[in-house]
Amino acid sequence: MTDYGANFGKTIKKLLDEKKYQTLKDVLVTMEPADVAAVFEDIEEERMPLLFRLLPKELAAETFAELDSDWQELLIRGFSDSELRELLGELYVDDAADLIEEMPANVVKRILAQADPQTRREINEILRYPENSAGSIMTTEYVSLRPDMTVAQAISRIRRTGVDKETIYTCYVTAERRLLGTVSVKDLLLATDDDAPVSAVMDPNVISVTTLTDQEEVAQMLSRYNFLALPVVDTDGRMVGIVTFDDAMDVIVEETTEDIEKMAGMLPSGKTYLHSSSLDLFRQRIPWLALLMVSATFTGMIITSFEHALAAQVALTAFIPMLMDTGGNSGSQASVTVIRALSLGELSFADMPRVLWKEIQTSVLCGTALAALCFGKIMLVDRLLLGNADITAPTAFTVCFTMALTVLIAKLVGCSLPMVAKRLGFDPAVMASPFITTVVDALSLLVYFTAANALLF
Amino acid sequence: MTDYGANFGKTIKKLLDEKKYQTLKDVLVTMEPADVAAVFEDIEEERMPLLFRLLPKELAAETFAELDSDWQELLIRGFSDSELRELLGELYVDDAADLIEEMPANVVKRILAQADPQTRREINEILRYPENSAGSIMTTEYVSLRPDMTVAQAISRIRRTGVDKETIYTCYVTAERRLLGTVSVKDLLLATDDDAPVSAVMDPNVISVTTLTDQEEVAQMLSRYNFLALPVVDTDGRMVGIVTFDDAMDVIVEETTEDIEKMAGMLPSGKTYLHSSSLDLFRQRIPWLALLMVSATFTGMIITSFEHALAAQVALTAFIPMLMDTGGNSGSQASVTVIRALSLGELSFADMPRVLWKEIQTSVLCGTALAALCFGKIMLVDRLLLGNADITAPTAFTVCFTMALTVLIAKLVGCSLPMVAKRLGFDPAVMASPFITTVVDALSLLVYFTAANALLF
Repeated sequence: MTDYGANFGKTIKKLLDEKKYQTLKDVLVTMEPADVAAVFEDIEEERMPLLFRLLPKELAAETFAELDSDWQELLIRGFSDSELRELLGELYVDDAADLIEEMPANVVKRILAQADPQTRREINEILRYPENSAGSIMTTEYVSLRPDMTVAQAISRIRRTGVDKETIYTCYVTAERRLLGTVSVKDLLLATDDDAPVSAVMDPNVISVTTLTDQEEVAQMLSRYNFLALPVVDTDGRMVGIVTFDDAMDVIVEETTEDIEKMAGMLPSGKTYLHSSSLDLFRQRIPWLALLMVSATFTGMIITSFEHALAAQVALTAFIPMLMDTGGNSGSQASVTVIRALSLGELSFADMPRVLWKEIQTSVLCGTALAALCFGKIMLVDRLLLGNADITAPTAFTVCFTMALTVLIAKLVGCSLPMVAKRLGFDPAVMASPFITTVVDALSLLVYFTAANALLF
Repeated sequence: MTDYGANFGKTIKKLLDEKKYQTLKDVLVTMEPADVAAVFEDIEEERMPLLFRLLPKELAAETFAELDSDWQELLIRGFSDSELRELLGELYVDDAADLIEEMPANVVKRILAQADPQTRREINEILRYPENSAGSIMTTEYVSLRPDMTVAQAISRIRRTGVDKETIYTCYVTAERRLLGTVSVKDLLLATDDDAPVSAVMDPNVISVTTLTDQEEVAQMLSRYNFLALPVVDTDGRMVGIVTFDDAMDVIVEETTEDIEKMAGMLPSGKTYLHSSSLDLFRQRIPWLALLMVSATFTGMIITSFEHALAAQVALTAFIPMLMDTGGNSGSQASVTVIRALSLGELSFADMPRVLWKEIQTSVLCGTALAALCFGKIMLVDRLLLGNADITAPTAFTVCFTMALTVLIAKLVGCSLPMVAKRLGFDPAVMASPFITTVVDALSLLVYFTAANALLF
């Protein structure tokens, strides 16, 4: 995709250099808004306003909605008041609200001054809702029908008012703004009797969300039910807007990226990698690195307190990395699996006993297999092949025993911490690899040295 | 969501116990297929067929498509031939093809025997395509229009034939099966002239995929362009089917789960956590655990070869876990960020120099900050607070120097391995935390002991 934008950018630049504006226009109108936006973000800043003015109104608005906020700001600063008014007239209300959330205060002021009163009211409505709520991502432009309209009247209403609506395919049947049912254009078109009332063809079993429902839940519901849009009602039960599937797809991708970032011990950034400066990356990464480094003091203390054992048998040190890594890997396998299942809604806290039991069984299988493999490896490779005579069968046994127990501890810690975090209202994704590794490191070293003291000295 | 299904399950079970079949029916018809399926998977197996027979035809087929394959098989084995025929008549062709892929051979034979010749042909068409290709997830049921039809004729054709189509909202204008353009029902309904030919209202700039395009790419295109469906053409340029947005959402979620599993050092399973047995989990997890454990032999060898240094200053051992963990965490931050950007199509191999430069800058920032923090921590906590007089300023300097260099190495290895893997046609997700940790462990220990030899002895 990126490649496509970049390569196409060259053609566009050449046409711009040669001032072939008519050709440029002919080329741009054949493209999808997302691709035009990719080309715009690839050319020099000062040429973008010129290029933008070549686009027909509707494509211009759709392209604008796809641009990154830096480019949007650049364009708006170059717009005359009438250009800005025209753009706002074409933008969907939810895109306009997104825009306002991203712009600095003086730009926001200008935008609101140019928006017509109706749009301004709708934008403010959306901006009232907390970030990441259904209210904040909904659009107020949907088709509403009255229950007593006939099918023919409904179709003609859609034909008359549909042009500004984000989707016309699911229509909402309301009376005094209360949601009575939904009816799809498919149902209306395929209805056998054009004179039947809408209430007879509508589906009265409506699934809706409230303005305060978390956007991730909204996205999961849209994906679970394969809906094109979900209606949003306010706390008094009155319909105020809809969330469409394309916004839900974006939410799913964004929220997953956030989860992945948290699982890798980073603060979520909300910016794409190439748009992040190294200072952004530093800010995103240093908090967990610093915290985890400091918390490694405990592992250091454990090693220090067993110094005599290590001094007596230096060979023991050589196995520390293997034990720690196996523990870390086992733990992150369990934690990442559980975190993903939690965020897909496949698991809840009530499943904890089943999860623990599954992980205990899996640990016994993995631990036994690894311990056996490890014993063979130590005796064959480390002792025979590498000729390390310090390593005796009791040493190997100590290592392998620790290995098996570490796998068990790691899997139990790995699967339970995220579930407990979720239960306590924290984000389970934070309880992933880096954090679990630190906990498991300390526990596995304790097991190791205790076992060594008991078995070898 | 899970909770909802489970709680509702109790009501349904009670109604079943009391044989209140009419009430059950009244309740079930108000529910969405995905929720009915969740209830079914929650009740005892032997009662499911009874419950299934209470559903009206269409809801029954939609619920069936949402069920896990174990439950689908159970139902089919209980069906009479005529029940099976009826179900196949209602199922969308892509769901029928999915079903056949999951069933054992004898069940497949029965299904194909009961399908009508047209359906059988279409199913076989879909099954011809490789797994994870656009062809394998498409449906052949779409609305096609001729370019010379009028808008009014087009609408009446949709009304006549639309009932069996998976989506009617995007229609495909074809001549001799070649795709000329797309037209949405919105365009048709909002067209001002009912007698205009379809060719005048259609959009001739069609974005399509081929039957062999990877399903992940198809899903990303649908999400990028906010399309309801993408047309699929065969290698001769003839239109053969469409992929709809709801299937794309499922693909995005599945592929992300696979990526996450690989990043945590697991083989992707394709099963949900609670549906995986501990043997499944063992098979998924043991290969990487075993491989990484064996490869830790190298870190062991490095430690063994520097045994004299460690014996001379045992305090050095205490810092090994901290250095290894910080290296591992730094590396996985970089690798996970790059892997995610690659799989979202935000990065390509051509961006490698920019990525390396960004990571070098970030490493210098993170490395300096961590080294300074670490030096303070060692001198204050380890030396003063814990009274470890072995730890001198040169020791602290050695540790902090290693720390800074490890962060740099880890970030460079972390960001470049996934990009190189992608370039060579391997899956970048495999180059994540566990693998990078092993590589970085060995490199950081080498730096540590080399620095210690140079600075302390």
